[in-house]
Amino acid sequence: METRTHAPDHRNALQVKSILGTESLKKDQLEKILDCAFYFRSLRDQGKPFPATLANKNTILLFFEASTRTRSSFALAAKNLGGNTVALTKEASSTSKGETLLDTARTIEAMRPDILVLRHPSAGSPHHLDKHLGIPVINAGDGFHEHPTQAFLDLMTIREFKGEMKGLKVLIVGDIAHSRVARSDTYALQTMGAEISVCGPPTLIPPQMERMKVKVFHDLEQAVQGQDVIIVLRVQLERLNPAQNPSPGEYSRFYGISAAIVEKCKKDVLIMHPGPVNRGVELSPDVADGPHSVILNQVGNGVLVRMAVLHLLTGGEPLKLKEDR
Amino acid sequence: METRTHAPDHRNALQVKSILGTESLKKDQLEKILDCAFYFRSLRDQGKPFPATLANKNTILLFFEASTRTRSSFALAAKNLGGNTVALTKEASSTSKGETLLDTARTIEAMRPDILVLRHPSAGSPHHLDKHLGIPVINAGDGFHEHPTQAFLDLMTIREFKGEMKGLKVLIVGDIAHSRVARSDTYALQTMGAEISVCGPPTLIPPQMERMKVKVFHDLEQAVQGQDVIIVLRVQLERLNPAQNPSPGEYSRFYGISAAIVEKCKKDVLIMHPGPVNRGVELSPDVADGPHSVILNQVGNGVLVRMAVLHLLTGGEPLKLKEDR
Amino acid sequence: METRTHAPDHRNALQVKSILGTESLKKDQLEKILDCAFYFRSLRDQGKPFPATLANKNTILLFFEASTRTRSSFALAAKNLGGNTVALTKEASSTSKGETLLDTARTIEAMRPDILVLRHPSAGSPHHLDKHLGIPVINAGDGFHEHPTQAFLDLMTIREFKGEMKGLKVLIVGDIAHSRVARSDTYALQTMGAEISVCGPPTLIPPQMERMKVKVFHDLEQAVQGQDVIIVLRVQLERLNPAQNPSPGEYSRFYGISAAIVEKCKKDVLIMHPGPVNRGVELSPDVADGPHSVILNQVGNGVLVRMAVLHLLTGGEPLKLKEDR
Repeated sequence: METRTHAPDHRNALQVKSILGTESLKKDQLEKILDCAFYFRSLRDQGKPFPATLANKNTILLFFEASTRTRSSFALAAKNLGGNTVALTKEASSTSKGETLLDTARTIEAMRPDILVLRHPSAGSPHHLDKHLGIPVINAGDGFHEHPTQAFLDLMTIREFKGEMKGLKVLIVGDIAHSRVARSDTYALQTMGAEISVCGPPTLIPPQMERMKVKVFHDLEQAVQGQDVIIVLRVQLERLNPAQNPSPGEYSRFYGISAAIVEKCKKDVLIMHPGPVNRGVELSPDVADGPHSVILNQVGNGVLVRMAVLHLLTGGEPLKLKEDR
Repeated sequence: METRTHAPDHRNALQVKSILGTESLKKDQLEKILDCAFYFRSLRDQGKPFPATLANKNTILLFFEASTRTRSSFALAAKNLGGNTVALTKEASSTSKGETLLDTARTIEAMRPDILVLRHPSAGSPHHLDKHLGIPVINAGDGFHEHPTQAFLDLMTIREFKGEMKGLKVLIVGDIAHSRVARSDTYALQTMGAEISVCGPPTLIPPQMERMKVKVFHDLEQAVQGQDVIIVLRVQLERLNPAQNPSPGEYSRFYGISAAIVEKCKKDVLIMHPGPVNRGVELSPDVADGPHSVILNQVGNGVLVRMAVLHLLTGGEPLKLKEDR
Repeated sequence: METRTHAPDHRNALQVKSILGTESLKKDQLEKILDCAFYFRSLRDQGKPFPATLANKNTILLFFEASTRTRSSFALAAKNLGGNTVALTKEASSTSKGETLLDTARTIEAMRPDILVLRHPSAGSPHHLDKHLGIPVINAGDGFHEHPTQAFLDLMTIREFKGEMKGLKVLIVGDIAHSRVARSDTYALQTMGAEISVCGPPTLIPPQMERMKVKVFHDLEQAVQGQDVIIVLRVQLERLNPAQNPSPGEYSRFYGISAAIVEKCKKDVLIMHPGPVNRGVELSPDVADGPHSVILNQVGNGVLVRMAVLHLLTGGEPLKLKEDR
């Protein structure tokens, strides 16, 4: 008998109800998010106040996997816009009492929060909830599927240092098969006109890459040549085992980004990583802390793109710097 | 040597310091809570701002048992009224270092929060703290004893759909013996003039029911006839075992609310459940999602009655809709 | 490539960037913190609003050890000043994924919070972070090393009841060797001109005490004579074992503060304890709840000194009561 009295307004600046992935987003939607994030960056750098778009609005952070970065980043983003957050973890939620995810989400929705941020180990779970809920859902990572706000922050960081993305050559290195970051980045960067390549052990590159118009390399020295940006993926150490995949030592030798590899790269290559870094495995410490690394810029931009998404999804007006590009 | 310089004002609209249970609450107190909750509902539905009753006030949520609903609901209620919350769990509190509950509570009180919400597995623990603390205590569930805000939201939902409660017939189905919901609902509904029946396996109905002027049934088909409202309790699956109690399959066959049972009910029966639902055990999925179910309305009302309690206990003026009934 | 665009302003009233310990703090800095805390206390007791020094400011509470008191106290302190908090625990942080503490902290800093509060089991970790981060760091306890805000609240409580600290005799009883409270209290109280003695089992008194101009006692009855203040440390029960140290029973018999011991003390002795108390071990229940005990005053003052530190470190003006001493 529950009837929503005020349906969420999908007629926001992005013209989507939810942010579930980058696959379905068009260039102008990505541009709006980036423009807004750069606008917020400018406010921040001038010490000016952010708009209170989320005043009196509640954001639920429903996290079924541990995460420093993403959860804190969303929490700070919501608070920066004057909003409240309520964090729910797997342990705290009644799914530990056998409740289904949908029942948990419907229960949460009935409490009338304004927005739901979900991290869940099952691919597709945010889409499932989005279909059944009236409020906007933001996918903060679903299994091996998508992690759209990570792609937004990667785009923002690339625009920050490289400007126009059209024609830019971007290489993603690592376990492509199990990476939601690789997938979300690839879709979003291709939409922006970048040329994507991937490099990793054959067992960790999924076959559909070629269909996605992605160039596949297995030799790192060859792969890095001429690339403008290298996105290094975090290695899930538990997946590296001699039976099927290279050991950590082997992985590092063949696919780790070391100073010697950076030598083969363009002089102005950007080295990016979604964090947390396994120092000495996928990235040598000198490269992680070196002049090409923009890893901390990515983290800082993460708060800004999440602010942009929260602002735009809840009906905030599109914001853009006048002097921007 | 600690002396409270400003004693909490018990001369609030409810004229109680704390909300510990429904047993001691009079009809006019219950009415005040419901009136205020309906007033907040009207503000919400019109998109109007809630009063900032809790501005600059801190609510401590001290939860010794996991809970999605109740903790989030209180957190949202406090934030909706402009307040801050600090959540403490068993793990985070020093009771894990051997501190007694009272020492923990006294320590918390010394930090001068404005209100304490407590969920604890021991019956009577909120009463114990209330006696020793100067600040209002809200019982968010104490063992098998009481869960008063659950009763308030049940009352609100019944009033929403049935109006006047006097003379209404309400059946509670399930493990009555171990249910704080059954107990709090029974006291509050009787105070409002409803006639209460219970139905469940003989081993799960406590002997004092008859003394409480509650009609006892063991046959569900017979019990549901003529009832206006059926409150279905959550089954604690770990309590169902063949030695003493029915198995889950048996329970469902004899005491589960299925479409066939709903057929035997009044055409406008309300089906309620405190959640989370064991789908297919105490409630069949088609009934849980069907036209008689008001489970999500209960959840939504939960935030509103908790706002009402927080508002009234901290000195907010009584609020009532003009056109209300 | 990350460049801070707005460096934190170290030209605050305390003229320090961070609060890492009491060893390096001068008397005028301690006085400023106490004056500000007493000013906040007066506002609180008059029911006047606190300044919104932390409005639009985010405080990160990074706690690698469980704690009711300290974490809640900092959270309430920040919220009282209008600020937001984001709590991160060891489990929630990516250090559980093998990230180093410094990487975690740099990641957090890149999200542009305004202040970092750290509790960590390793001595020196806040100093390590402070060197590498641009934002103020507050040490909320680092291993056996320092716990400066505990010292501030102890100072505030002593000033509350005793006024001038110069020449005051203060005895610290217990496991001095493993106590960050003993260390921080000793430095701060000596700076304020108090005379410090310690008493405990020989195995739990570190050899450097004499160098610190601290009088060492092993006999409690003798030690308490003439003391104005006795600070009783919490016993870590797991450290009491017959092989090396006294058992809990022996400890209590030789070093527990009982009514009989209080009999030997000055009539107006203050009994303090950082909590949580092991009742019946280091402190008998009648003493813990008796007229000399100011344990709950300490807890209340804890919020106020933390407010003072947050206020002053983030550029709040020095505040002092006119009539104050």
